[in-house]
Amino acid sequence: MPKLEKGLIQVYTGNGKGKTSAAFGLALRAMGRGLKVYIIQFIKGGFDYGELYVADKLPNLTLKAFGRGKFVTEKPPRREDVDSANEALTLAEEKVKSGEYDVVILDEINVALSLKLIDIRRVMEMLKTKPNHVELVLTGRSAPDTLVRVADLVTEMKEIKHPYNEGFSARKGIEY
Amino acid sequence: MPKLEKGLIQVYTGNGKGKTSAAFGLALRAMGRGLKVYIIQFIKGGFDYGELYVADKLPNLTLKAFGRGKFVTEKPPRREDVDSANEALTLAEEKVKSGEYDVVILDEINVALSLKLIDIRRVMEMLKTKPNHVELVLTGRSAPDTLVRVADLVTEMKEIKHPYNEGFSARKGIEY
Repeated sequence: MPKLEKGLIQVYTGNGKGKTSAAFGLALRAMGRGLKVYIIQFIKGGFDYGELYVADKLPNLTLKAFGRGKFVTEKPPRREDVDSANEALTLAEEKVKSGEYDVVILDEINVALSLKLIDIRRVMEMLKTKPNHVELVLTGRSAPDTLVRVADLVTEMKEIKHPYNEGFSARKGIEY
Repeated sequence: MPKLEKGLIQVYTGNGKGKTSAAFGLALRAMGRGLKVYIIQFIKGGFDYGELYVADKLPNLTLKAFGRGKFVTEKPPRREDVDSANEALTLAEEKVKSGEYDVVILDEINVALSLKLIDIRRVMEMLKTKPNHVELVLTGRSAPDTLVRVADLVTEMKEIKHPYNEGFSARKGIEY
């Protein structure tokens, strides 16, 4: 039985820290209320993230990660990156459509879109036809304007100050 | 034994969604790495938040909430609001100083500061004297400039679009 009367489309974008963390924090809150959460990570598969070690201990949470564990930078992108992002999207379409999950998080989908690994028309169709009670959360920098237009709630994480700029390197447990 | 070589001071501020969620997501990641996390909520005590129901099931996480469960709006603030925010700060000082926790999250402390419920000089002293390995995360809108100046990492959550603006009301499991 759906628990939300009306699910929204949320977008977290921008160059600042906290987009994926905000989505995981939201998942935690939702689980606290007995909601079912499905997280699909686009292009992050294979990375070693701290949250993965807790995710499988949490009730009502399923997490699937796609990608080859490397940031996609080639232009045009590699065939395997396109394939795995599309696999992620197919799973997303299926899980959203099923209506079985109250919250579906599409982590880094904005990046997959901006790199044109996936077709924005497929994503727009998924948003347009989503069951009413399903909350959709899309994260990643460079969210396309088309997506921002149809979203109900959009937050930009804006970097004001970051030690990376001073040659700082990522730390286990904090940055990953 | 401290797990972080160098703990930073992080600030999440701005009028957008996701500040507390980002802090909780970060806590989740840290726990996934076996780090010990202490969360102190300023002015949020008594509120019924979804994350509270999961928090006590998580290993390595302690959460204490202060306040009377109402947003503080009176000017000058009520005595009891001043007292509970100061109680929260005293606990924060103690837990930071102990060096026992790898990550200490001071949720909504920025709001307590901007409402002048607590003295910024005490907070600055706590930041200046924190053990090197402790990561401090301060959240809440209206972070004072003095705080932003000493922080290592500052992210502004900027509201781009929000259904509240159209008379939308908060939903259990998503907004709280």
